[in-house]
Amino acid sequence: MDGIRVIACDIFGTTVDWYTGVADQVADLLPDVDAGGFASQWRDKYVPSMANVREGRRDWAYLDTLHRESLDELLERHGLDPDEDTRRRLVLAWHRLPAWPDSLDGLTRLRERYTLAALSNGGFALLTTLVKAAHLPFDCILSAELARAYKPDPVAYRTAARLLDVEPGEVLMVAAHGWDLDGARAAGLRTAFLERPGEKGPDRRADRAADVTADVSVASFTELAEVLSRV
Amino acid sequence: MDGIRVIACDIFGTTVDWYTGVADQVADLLPDVDAGGFASQWRDKYVPSMANVREGRRDWAYLDTLHRESLDELLERHGLDPDEDTRRRLVLAWHRLPAWPDSLDGLTRLRERYTLAALSNGGFALLTTLVKAAHLPFDCILSAELARAYKPDPVAYRTAARLLDVEPGEVLMVAAHGWDLDGARAAGLRTAFLERPGEKGPDRRADRAADVTADVSVASFTELAEVLSRV
Repeated sequence: MDGIRVIACDIFGTTVDWYTGVADQVADLLPDVDAGGFASQWRDKYVPSMANVREGRRDWAYLDTLHRESLDELLERHGLDPDEDTRRRLVLAWHRLPAWPDSLDGLTRLRERYTLAALSNGGFALLTTLVKAAHLPFDCILSAELARAYKPDPVAYRTAARLLDVEPGEVLMVAAHGWDLDGARAAGLRTAFLERPGEKGPDRRADRAADVTADVSVASFTELAEVLSRV
Repeated sequence: MDGIRVIACDIFGTTVDWYTGVADQVADLLPDVDAGGFASQWRDKYVPSMANVREGRRDWAYLDTLHRESLDELLERHGLDPDEDTRRRLVLAWHRLPAWPDSLDGLTRLRERYTLAALSNGGFALLTTLVKAAHLPFDCILSAELARAYKPDPVAYRTAARLLDVEPGEVLMVAAHGWDLDGARAAGLRTAFLERPGEKGPDRRADRAADVTADVSVASFTELAEVLSRV
């Protein structure tokens, strides 16, 4: 773990609790559906929708656009037809999500020693809004949008290192998802798995440390700050 | 001034005092030269060096590269030949500069109501380092590097608005230089002139409010926060 200069943090699930945040907003806007189930089904379409971009089946599209397309499909499947304003507000649910309880304290400690970057597939505007609303102390926002390539495409990680003028091996990627860390490692980054057992809500199994390959595994950002303080 | 959502701040001269910061570091590294004069002569090459990129006489080059080329020319003109390490440290002088006394307070107040972005011709890594070292509370870093186009090219300003998903007219560009505000206005942004009489040191005349066209003119970030609080 020596030689690290930048900590790049995944956001959805790793730094903020998308499940609770989206389910709460769905409950407000679509009072007749199972909000948690709806949030989960929406998120299920996340990785496949980006794969269409990554694998060249469509041109670059912003995450808001992918979220909107997934939402429209899901609403039709549920036999729902809310108005345009409601659909727009549902897409914006992903712009305002609560931080996990340890995120503020752990990130604040990590920032004392490292450059702290948000590195997410969320768009630059989405991430700026979300990080500001959650009062998270990032030094900079680094979106996949800047590379026009979604994680786990190696270009997304390497663009982050290039913009911060460091070698890929000087970046520690922190994520709650094995697929994200696999992509980071393939691009030459170091990897920290942050186990978030409740990330997918009460009815789904989140990635667990035993299943994931990473340089280090922790249960919170606070624990990561402690581990790195001993390096 | 209504309808503004983003405040985009120029950095060198507007938010930080490049003259004092660079001169202090030149005095340390090149003790036999007139440090203030050297800093001014180096800065004189700034706009012309970027014009070569803007006007297509050379490909995109990072500001660090332009600063290094200008430095090498200037050292030769002064008959100086410091070693490579000294030259590198001189280029890095532009990465660590002191904030003007009003910047922290004024920016903190502006951030309560607006998305606050650094929008400079400095590289993304340079700006991230500089903003972190000066403890300035920006929500995001927006470098000309992200557009690969230097201000006052309209593309630099429009890319900033696009990344933050706002219309150009929803962005207020704050700068101490008329040429920057002229570029911002041509790109459709709103403009605030921040008068910094000491920006170029004691022997040079900085841009003054009477010479500059802008939607509003102020003498500090604190005054700008006050003016906008009345909108």
